[in-house]
This record gives sequence, structure tokens and C-alpha cells, in this order.
Amino acid sequence: MAAKTLNVGLIGYRFMGKAHSNAYRQVARFFPELTTVPVMKALCGRDETEVKAAADLLGWQSYETDWRKLIERPDIDIIDIATPGNFHAEIAVAAAQAGKHVLCEKPLGNSAAEGKTMLNAVTKAGVLHGVYFNYRKVPAIALAKQLIDSALLGKIYHWRATYLQDWIVDPDFPLVWRLKKELAGSGSHGDLNAHLIDMARYLVGEFREVNGLFETFVKKRPELAAADSRLGGTADKSRLGDVTVDDASIFLARFENGAVGTFEATRFALGRKNFNTFEINGSKGSVAFNQERMNELEVYTEDTAAGTYGFRNVNVTSGADPYTGHFWPTAHIIGYEHTFINFIYDAFTAFGKGECPSPNFEDGYKNNVILDQVTKSAESRQWEHVVF
Amino acid sequence: MAAKTLNVGLIGYRFMGKAHSNAYRQVARFFPELTTVPVMKALCGRDETEVKAAADLLGWQSYETDWRKLIERPDIDIIDIATPGNFHAEIAVAAAQAGKHVLCEKPLGNSAAEGKTMLNAVTKAGVLHGVYFNYRKVPAIALAKQLIDSALLGKIYHWRATYLQDWIVDPDFPLVWRLKKELAGSGSHGDLNAHLIDMARYLVGEFREVNGLFETFVKKRPELAAADSRLGGTADKSRLGDVTVDDASIFLARFENGAVGTFEATRFALGRKNFNTFEINGSKGSVAFNQERMNELEVYTEDTAAGTYGFRNVNVTSGADPYTGHFWPTAHIIGYEHTFINFIYDAFTAFGKGECPSPNFEDGYKNNVILDQVTKSAESRQWEHVVF
Amino acid sequence: MAAKTLNVGLIGYRFMGKAHSNAYRQVARFFPELTTVPVMKALCGRDETEVKAAADLLGWQSYETDWRKLIERPDIDIIDIATPGNFHAEIAVAAAQAGKHVLCEKPLGNSAAEGKTMLNAVTKAGVLHGVYFNYRKVPAIALAKQLIDSALLGKIYHWRATYLQDWIVDPDFPLVWRLKKELAGSGSHGDLNAHLIDMARYLVGEFREVNGLFETFVKKRPELAAADSRLGGTADKSRLGDVTVDDASIFLARFENGAVGTFEATRFALGRKNFNTFEINGSKGSVAFNQERMNELEVYTEDTAAGTYGFRNVNVTSGADPYTGHFWPTAHIIGYEHTFINFIYDAFTAFGKGECPSPNFEDGYKNNVILDQVTKSAESRQWEHVVF
Amino acid sequence: MAAKTLNVGLIGYRFMGKAHSNAYRQVARFFPELTTVPVMKALCGRDETEVKAAADLLGWQSYETDWRKLIERPDIDIIDIATPGNFHAEIAVAAAQAGKHVLCEKPLGNSAAEGKTMLNAVTKAGVLHGVYFNYRKVPAIALAKQLIDSALLGKIYHWRATYLQDWIVDPDFPLVWRLKKELAGSGSHGDLNAHLIDMARYLVGEFREVNGLFETFVKKRPELAAADSRLGGTADKSRLGDVTVDDASIFLARFENGAVGTFEATRFALGRKNFNTFEINGSKGSVAFNQERMNELEVYTEDTAAGTYGFRNVNVTSGADPYTGHFWPTAHIIGYEHTFINFIYDAFTAFGKGECPSPNFEDGYKNNVILDQVTKSAESRQWEHVVF
Repeated sequence: MAAKTLNVGLIGYRFMGKAHSNAYRQVARFFPELTTVPVMKALCGRDETEVKAAADLLGWQSYETDWRKLIERPDIDIIDIATPGNFHAEIAVAAAQAGKHVLCEKPLGNSAAEGKTMLNAVTKAGVLHGVYFNYRKVPAIALAKQLIDSALLGKIYHWRATYLQDWIVDPDFPLVWRLKKELAGSGSHGDLNAHLIDMARYLVGEFREVNGLFETFVKKRPELAAADSRLGGTADKSRLGDVTVDDASIFLARFENGAVGTFEATRFALGRKNFNTFEINGSKGSVAFNQERMNELEVYTEDTAAGTYGFRNVNVTSGADPYTGHFWPTAHIIGYEHTFINFIYDAFTAFGKGECPSPNFEDGYKNNVILDQVTKSAESRQWEHVVF
Repeated sequence: MAAKTLNVGLIGYRFMGKAHSNAYRQVARFFPELTTVPVMKALCGRDETEVKAAADLLGWQSYETDWRKLIERPDIDIIDIATPGNFHAEIAVAAAQAGKHVLCEKPLGNSAAEGKTMLNAVTKAGVLHGVYFNYRKVPAIALAKQLIDSALLGKIYHWRATYLQDWIVDPDFPLVWRLKKELAGSGSHGDLNAHLIDMARYLVGEFREVNGLFETFVKKRPELAAADSRLGGTADKSRLGDVTVDDASIFLARFENGAVGTFEATRFALGRKNFNTFEINGSKGSVAFNQERMNELEVYTEDTAAGTYGFRNVNVTSGADPYTGHFWPTAHIIGYEHTFINFIYDAFTAFGKGECPSPNFEDGYKNNVILDQVTKSAESRQWEHVVF
Repeated sequence: MAAKTLNVGLIGYRFMGKAHSNAYRQVARFFPELTTVPVMKALCGRDETEVKAAADLLGWQSYETDWRKLIERPDIDIIDIATPGNFHAEIAVAAAQAGKHVLCEKPLGNSAAEGKTMLNAVTKAGVLHGVYFNYRKVPAIALAKQLIDSALLGKIYHWRATYLQDWIVDPDFPLVWRLKKELAGSGSHGDLNAHLIDMARYLVGEFREVNGLFETFVKKRPELAAADSRLGGTADKSRLGDVTVDDASIFLARFENGAVGTFEATRFALGRKNFNTFEINGSKGSVAFNQERMNELEVYTEDTAAGTYGFRNVNVTSGADPYTGHFWPTAHIIGYEHTFINFIYDAFTAFGKGECPSPNFEDGYKNNVILDQVTKSAESRQWEHVVF
Repeated sequence: MAAKTLNVGLIGYRFMGKAHSNAYRQVARFFPELTTVPVMKALCGRDETEVKAAADLLGWQSYETDWRKLIERPDIDIIDIATPGNFHAEIAVAAAQAGKHVLCEKPLGNSAAEGKTMLNAVTKAGVLHGVYFNYRKVPAIALAKQLIDSALLGKIYHWRATYLQDWIVDPDFPLVWRLKKELAGSGSHGDLNAHLIDMARYLVGEFREVNGLFETFVKKRPELAAADSRLGGTADKSRLGDVTVDDASIFLARFENGAVGTFEATRFALGRKNFNTFEINGSKGSVAFNQERMNELEVYTEDTAAGTYGFRNVNVTSGADPYTGHFWPTAHIIGYEHTFINFIYDAFTAFGKGECPSPNFEDGYKNNVILDQVTKSAESRQWEHVVF
């Protein structure tokens, strides 16, 4: 029986565009049970030379230079948004109004208001939608979710998470788009805390209140030499501009179930490259995770011989989770890109049933609300409630 | 040349009393260069049978059952206070007034007011004083201090610290003195955060403002079966009492130098036994420490061959620090008790010069102020300034 | 400019066939600079239903059920052999005689004699050839090679390596082809030590002499229920057969440059799944590697601040090696499958220049010789010289 | 009830003498249940000034400069031998003949013949005897022994051990006594493999046969500047002498129970300081140990939830072993010196019953035999049987 197909139009072809494209190319190779599969119809970007080359390289059948034209194309079923954050809302709303399903990079909007607008648009249009919180699809994290859902950890008391990077510690690193509020919405907060917040919602539950601080350690940086927004651009040291986003964003949280949490996102932790970690402590067990060793989960339970309790290092590659059984034998590890393959697998499994995947725009909107309340608390210098 | 001696009277003989006694016995064996050495003159405790046995076991020449008598003894030069926190202030003030030097366990007072009273008393009396923030004396932490002081880490941006334990996760664990506010002052906060705060002051600098949350996960517990205050007592499940201290205490901080910090103390992190960790990120390097592997320091600097940067695991046993050269060859590790030996070595080195050791009551008082401001912030739900 | 193409015919579609296919599909997506690229022309296997499905799934344009027919096809430029070891020699010789380039899984032959025959055949035919020692293409190992070649480690004294698995510890695990000498040639030795030997030749140099022991802990096992040779077959406990290969193979070695080495391969190390590790100690530095954390290399050199020497954990994802710059940003890790993509990249780079890739049949033959001499030493119970 | 006492005379006051002295001083402080306790009667060394100072520092009541006089003293019950290996036999035999109990550093003799002579002497004299294989007294290793004895690991298949150091990698390091065969007997072999062999006998069982290689990487070194034998002496680069012992000694072994083992001792593993490690794999579980993290034991068993198997890091400080309950609370770690305290505790417990401690001269002799057979195999280049 031939699988049903859905035609995808992807907007953006840099880091995220490359990761999404790879997932579309690979998903049916590893998950042959998929009954609805993606067709890589069109790639969209503003520079025709670049987008044409990218479409060839990444495996897209055609290209567009105007996202509005992409949305108008009748042969496109799904719009995948992998642009900087300031375009998310406008594109998603237009796509929904055109009756396209929408997959969108995180954070969903650059504000809760944008997120709400986007959620309303897809709901009103009755299209399917998903948001790329890809870390839910890390096998080790999916396993942690299983352990929690099966009550192996008991009542959850603690969440502590960090997302540490160091790519802008050098004060001469230039003012790329991610350092400008009008483009990125925020700095480390929307980029990194958005992920931590989603994992916390997924694993611990909903937030009750938050209280944070933001800091910008380097307040002026050289502008980009050329008039582009690439992350890897060259600095023009003769012109300094204001950094208008946070270098670090840290907050405390209380969850509805009584657990308490700490969150720290920063781009100023020298030596930490993609140090996305969390630990959860419950009344019966604990788990700890580090994205730099994403094939492993540290698990603590007290069900072994007396005197031999300890965190055990579980190599999550044996198929106890929903994903790794599709790839390679135990301890033949997978990598970052596979989280996107797993995401697309889950998304197209849901699409095949006419359902929204998880996480979707509702998660994206709630994430936006929490991000905003943390921002508000950093300004009000007091706790802020989370109400959706 | 015979060393000068100072006669010590120690109050308390349980966990801390055992650790202090060991340090007094051992210090001159490993640090023969000391010119002023302790004499273990008298041990003090309320139960005569127990204190007599403890004095024999731990190596004290005599014993007392009333700390006031101990203070009156003319053959005592130094009073060492290793009692529960509610006795610290009264004893320290009396000892100072009697002209004795004072060494005191942490936290110094059960409040900043007590700490201030104690600092004033020793200052007025002109006696020497020190406070047992023994983690400063961990060789790896002393090495971290050297690296920071020599500017190897550059400008400090981040401090993140946890002190995680799990000894009261079981809701049937009884109401020992550490869970009663009138005896312990606070729970995880004074017990664990006091250490983290001292290390942060030592390594990063003074605090500007703090903002925290406290949580008591298990609010009622069985009373102790017998009328004693031992940590290892038996629970009487027929009688429940109120836990009046925090199970967990978490806070954010800003330092005077612009760094930001996170602190988490808890007794509800299942699987973590004495998980006293910190990481410091600066503009030129980072260090990370874990007390459970206290002989090691993780160090990151970018002075090696290109492509080979990484946190390196330094076994701090080679004598680059002030202490380990006195013990065993490289990688023949030392343990928890040696931090007290090192503390007493530093204290008696200072005493030999007629100076207060570091840290002393001023550090203890400032620590109390910070602890109190965190407590205040947890009640006011907003940032509180730290002013000494 | 369009890239030149070479048409590939792959024989075998299980574990290795899947890995090779993925590499062919992906290589040009990540290495666009390739001027000669593979075309996935035909997949070959004996069961038509299975091979047809596999060809569809893995992305091959056609299929064959007889490898001789595949070799005869004029549209095939390269024969890729991913069969059990007992077919390698016959296929490779035939392919060479038909003028096809040959890529072959390891170990090259099931004996040095077979390896020699194969090397002679490709040499005589003047075709290009390579052998899948894919671990050379792990970025961390390629970085180790760079460090050694640039003399950063100094003179090499020690090599110690293990390849530990545990998939047959259960005595009821059935007699699959890998446990039969006539099919697999040997057990852990050819399967696992072959890799260790290749890495040692690559990183340390040629062998002078070897001395080993073999052990078969479980000497009889249930036959496979069905008459197939799949690794995951079901056991028929009513029929026991002889295990005719080694469960564990361990040996000592002396290298031509004076270094000494230890090698241990086993399928009986409970808890170790793919524990392929090595450590190299030189006069100026050391490196250590573990395939289960294949994105990391432990590096020790003494060029940092005094007192801060230590093995540093290098996340080899930043492009200092020849491969990772083509994939994802630093610390966004890659996995097992990427070693095959890197292998194919190197192979087709060489093919583009009309050269054999490295490693090739000469490496495969030498590897066979060393394997055989270890086997001989296990029988003679004395050291055996390695002469090619 | 007052404890019975035994008067100790210790010969040697450098590294081992310091460690033994500390154990005698401390043992009754932590093990008050001992009914027979040591009295530190006399310390013996050739240089009067030095031995007098050492006796004061280390806590001995008197000193001697001639070991024969020490043995003649009627107030000495136990002779403790902490000299270089070439003195062990002569002293032990004389002490036994004088009716003294004997504790001796390892290796017992510098050859099996010496070991046999010593064992015969103590047996004939009817005195008690022990040998300082102190690693048996590491709590984590004692716990491993418990797990094995309770069959938690099942049938043992594999032992792999290394003892890696790097203190003589520098070719200008001088010719200290440990590098001279006539004084030390051997190099890395007797110093380091002796420990590994003892741990293997303790945990796995008796040896059947061995097969090894020795290597001396740096064959000539500067003589010591002064005419002494201290390890930390200065090199006189104008005079070179022959290194007459092994820098590295590596061997394979078969045990009586069918297990196979690898052993590697070296002083040329740059970056490894006291890297005494082993791993044991059995049919039901595995354990792994590293002396540099001696408070931890890695344990693998398959008795936890499906999908969560993994080596767990057990902090062996909770008193499940025979020792740690006497020291500090869980995860308040102990160090190298405590292995000697534990050794003396076990020794005096045995002495109190009129029994030899374990390990004793029989273990020391068997250890000597195995060491010798490895040496013989390195010369004969073939397997050598172990027969006691």
C-alpha cells in the first residue's frame, strides 16, 4: 500500500532549515511504518542564488523567493517556518488563512500576544500545527517521560536546568540578529529558556509562578560588516551598536504540583557549548540529562541490592524509548539531527490521523506566556503568576 | 625549638565534635612547621557518661558537663563551639567576655542580629576568632581561589551552586533538632546555603542583592521517640509535630562585581548525598567543583592546542595548593576530615602571629546577613539588598 | 559544474547494508565539495521479496538477487561488499576481474591467505579498493591522529584498547552465523579486534609481534529455530550446536617503534554494549577514547598553568577535524552512522583523483595477517612475529 | 574494660612509615570496639637525627638506629617492616626467630624464594603475620568482594586491571632505589602488579597460568646526586647509570575458575598518577573500580526497570562495607590513609583472637610466586604455570 503524501514548503535554509530538510529526507528511511510521508516540494528564501543552491543541496524539488508566493501555491500542504522569530507570526497567520498546516520553529511568537494570535489563527482555520521543541524527541528525554508517567520517580519535588553556551563571550563578536530585540524578541531567554520551559512542562507539569533576572554583560558590540543577518558574519569594529537582548536569563519557578525549579540560560559560560542539562528529583527516584551526551540518561532508584544504590548511566539506544529501535543497535549512538527526524516522525504520525502533533501551537503559546512572565518578573523584581 | 601551645576546650562531641577533635589530634603530624599548636585540654557536653567516654575516645585530657565551667577554667585559651546553632551566641559572647579566643561552627549565629552580637563581643574583648567554613580549606577550592586571584579566569560572570542531600526524603524520618526552627534557626538554608554563600563570597566577592524561595515539602513528621536531639533518633509515629524549617531553599543573587549567581540547597534530592557543587564562568576560563569528588577540580582555559579545548580534570593532590603537599603523594587522595585539619592549620598559623584566621566572625556575620536577606526575600517575594 | 558520478552496487542489506546505504544517500548533502559522487544503482540480496523492499526503503534504483549478475552489469562501477565474511574473497576477486572498483567490509578476508588473494586481485586488475575500517573516520580519532602526527604526544610508549560487548552472555542466545567459524572466520577476534588492530596501526604504527589467548566461555548453544542466519533469530533449545569461535580474544603486542600494547575483545562483558576504547600514552601527552561517547576525546598535555594539568574532555564537533565542520554547530553531536558518511566522503574524494582511499585492501590484508598471527600465538602459546 | 595492648616497632619512616604510623595513631579513635590495640613503642631508621625527628613527628615513644636492636627489645611485640624490599626477608626471619609477630610491606619478598623463606620462618616460629596489601581494605573493594561472595555477579568471566603512573616519564629523573633491581627486586612489576595480583586473587581466585612482557623505555638515567636512596633525590646528569628494572610490565592470565585476565603496570602513562583500576565481568553483573576515586564503585546488574540498566555509581561511604560506618556520614569521603587504618583494624582484630590477619605471609608468598612466573614468562616468551 502506497503511503499518503503531504507536500512541504520550508521557509529558511540556514541551521534550522538544514536540520528540518535532513529530517524530511530521512524520516521514511528509518520509520517505514509511516503511512503519511512528507514530500519536499519547495524551499523558500529571499536570495535567489542562495535558495536555489540550498534547494539542490538539501533535496527540495523547487524554490521560492517570496514566502507569500509559497503560501499561495496549491501544491503545498504544509508550511514549515524556520525563519528568525520576527517573521513567525505573520507567516503562520497567513499560512493558516490559506488553509495550510503549519510547523513552526520555537519560540512560537516573539511574545505571548503573537503566540496567542498564531494559536487563534490555526484554530480558526482548522489547520493542523506543531512547534519544534525537538528536545522532547531525544530518546533519553522520552524515556524520562515514561519513567515519570509510570510513577517510577514518585512525587516530583525538584527541577533544575541549565542551558549554557559560550559563543558570544568574546566582546568583539558582532551584533548578529540574535542580539537584536526587534528581530529575535529576546536573547538567551527565548532561544534557550524556551527549550528548558518546554521540557519542564513536558516532564514536571504546568507553572504556577516565576521570578527571574536578566543580565547583558557586554552592552555594546561591533556591527556586522556586511548588511546581512548571518550568525557567522564579520565584525566591523569601527561601528558599535547596542546589544538589546539578554546575555543571561535565570529564574526560579513554582509548579502547580508543588515542585520548585531553577532555570539558567546563558551565552557566557566559557567552555560550555550546548550544555542543556536538567535533573528531576522525586520521592522515589531521580533522573539527570545532558544534551552533550544526549544518548545517556542518569537514573536513580532504590530497587537494587542494599548498599549499591547510585545514579546509573543508561545508554538509551536499545529501543525502550519510541525512537532508537528504528536506528542502530544498542550503544551505536545517534546525534542531534535525529531529534528532528523523530519530531517529523511524530508529526506525520499525527497528521496521518488528522491530528495535531505534540507539542503544538498550544504548547508554543503557553511557552510564550511563561517566557513573558519571566521577563515581566525581571522588570517588576517580584514573582509573577502564570495564567494562560 | 619547642612550639608554643594554646589549650583548647571543645563544646560538642557528635559529628562536628568528632571532626574538630580529629583535626586537633592530627594537625601537627602533617604540618610540623606550625609554631603554635593546640593542646586538647577539655571536652564539654551535658551527659557526663557520654562526654567522659567521648573525651577518652577523641583524645581530650579532661571533660566538663557545663560550658560555663569550661569557660571559667584558667587553663583554657580557646573555646571551640560545635553545638547546635541556638547555643552559639550565648557561649561565644561569654567566652569572649572571659578573654578566650573563639572558634565557632557555622552558621555563626541563628540570625544576623546574633551574628552581630557575637562579632561585637569578640571585637570588644580583643580576642581572636574564627568560623568553621571548612570548605575554603578543600585543596581544590583553594586552587580555584588561586586561579581567580591570578586572573586566569578573567572577569567573573557566573556562579551556580547546589548543595543537595536526601536524608529526609522519607516522610517518616523523625523531627530531629535540625528540623526545628527554635534550635536550628533554619533548615537547608543555614545548614547548606551557609556554605555556598561563604564559598561564593570567597571566590566571587560580596553580594549586592538576593531573591529566594523556601519550601517545606513534608510539613508534619513523627516526633523523636526519646527525649533527645540526636540526628539518628527513632521516630514515634503516634505523635506528629510540625516541621518549622525549610526542606529546600533556593535563591538568585547579584554580586557587587556584576556577576550573577544561583544557589540551591535541599534535603530532598534523592540520590544526592553530599552534592555540594559549584561552577564559575569568567571571561577567560571556568572552574567546576563537586564535594563528592573533592580531590578534583574541573578547569577550562583556552591555552592548549587549537581544537583541544575542554574542561580538564585536575587531581588536586600535588601540592600546588597550600595543603596537599603535607599529606600523601599525588593522586593518593585525602578526605572530608582533612578540610578540618587544614582549617586548624590555618587557624593556628594565624594565632601564632596574634591574628584572626580567615574566615572569622566578620565572615560569619556577613554570612548571617545574607542568609537573613534571602529569608526576607522569600517572605517579601521580591529582591532584598545586602547591606552589612 | 556537475559532479562526476560512480554507480554503486551494494551486496547485503542488513545492519551494514543499512549503514552503507545511509552514507551513500547522505554524503553529498553534507559534503557538497565532492566532485565525484555515488549513484545508488543496485542493491543485491538472495531473497527477492526482502531485497526489493530493502532497495525501496534504503533508496536504491534497482535490485539483484545474484551477486554474479550484479557484477556483470555494465552500469555498475563499484561493488560494495557488506556480506558475512565467508563471501568477501569470492565476490571481491570476481568484481576486480570484472573491472569494478571494490569497497569491502572488515575483516577483509576470513584469513590472511584470503586477504592476500583479494589484494592481489585488485592490484592485478588495476581497480580501486577500500576497506570499511570506519572508526578511522570518527572525528575524535581523526583528531587524535592529527595530534600524534604533529608530535604533540611525543614518542608513543603505550597503547591499551578494549572492545567490549555483552550480547551473548545469555547461554540461551542461539548459534547465529557470527558464532560459526566456517561463516564468520572467528568470533570476537575478527569482529572486534580487527577494528582495534586497524586503529592501532593507524595511530601507533606497525606491529612487530603478538601473543594472545582465546576463550569460549559457552561452548554449546541452541541452534537457530529457522534455517536462516539472522543475528536476531530465535533459539531452538531442543537442538544444541557447537560454538566454534572465540567469545573473547585478548593479546599483547610490541610495535615496530618500541611501543607496547594490550588488546581485549569480548562479547561477555556484561553492561558494556559497544565499549570500544583506547588510550595512548606518549612522552609528551596522552589521549583516550570511548566509542560510546564518540564525540569526545580525552587529551592530556602539560601546556597549561602549573598545578592544572589533567585529562581534558574535548568535544570534537568544532571542525578542527576533517569532518564535523560539515555537519552541525559545536556540541550538536553526530552519531555512529556519520562514520560511514565520512568514510564514503574520503573514498569518493580519492576516487575523484583516481586513487585508492585509505584504508584499503593493503590495510585489510595486513590486518588479516595480524589477526592470524594472534590466532597462531593462542595455539602455539608463544609470541608470533608479524611479517607481511 | 581496658583494651589489651601490643607494642609495635616500626622500621622505616618515609612514605610507608608515615602511612603506617598514622594508622596506628588513628585506629582506636575510629574503631573503639577493638579489644587489642597497638602501642607505638619504637621507630627504627639508620640516620639518628632523622629517625629521632620522625619518631617525634609521627608519635613514637622511642627510636632505634639498628633494626637488630629493635628486634632484641623485650618490650616489642610486633615488628612492622616498611623498608625497601631487599631488607624484608632478613628482617622478617630475624623477627620471627625472636618471637615477634610480623607485619610486612608488599611485595613480601623480592622473589618467591625469599617469600617462601619468610613464610617458613613465621610458621616455624609460630608468630602471627600479615602483609600490607592495603587495597583489600578500600571500602569499595570490600563491597565488591561482598557482592561477588553473595553471587550477585554470577560466574566470573573477565578481570581487567591497570596500575598506571607517570613519575619517571622524564628521562632526567634520577636512578632512585626503585629503579635498581638489587634493591627493589623489580620495577613496576613488584611495586604495582603486586597490588593488582593481590586484588585479583582476593576477588576472582587463584591463578592457573600467566604470560607477560616487560619493557624498559629509558635504559640509562642520571645517578642520584647524593649517596642516598630517597625517591625525591636530585639527578647528577654527569653520571649515567643503568636502569635495571622494568618501566612497564604487562601480562595475561588464566584463573583456576576459567576466568581470563589482563594486567598492566607502568610508570610511563603520562597523565595517570595513581590509576589503579579494575573491572570484573560476571554472568550476572559487573563492577569497576578506580583508586583515584576510591570512594566509588561502579556496579552493573540487571535488576532495575526495563530499559534502565546501566553501570551505577555507588558512593561507598554508607557503612554497607565493614569500614565506612566508623568514619563520617554518607558521601563525606575518606582517603588513601584510611586503607591503612582499616588494615590495622583488621590486623588487630585478628591479633585479639590469636589469629593471623588476612592477607598474610601465605598471600605474600603466593603473590611472589605469581610475580616470578610472570617474570619467567617474559623471559621464556611463553605461558608459565602457577604452582605454589
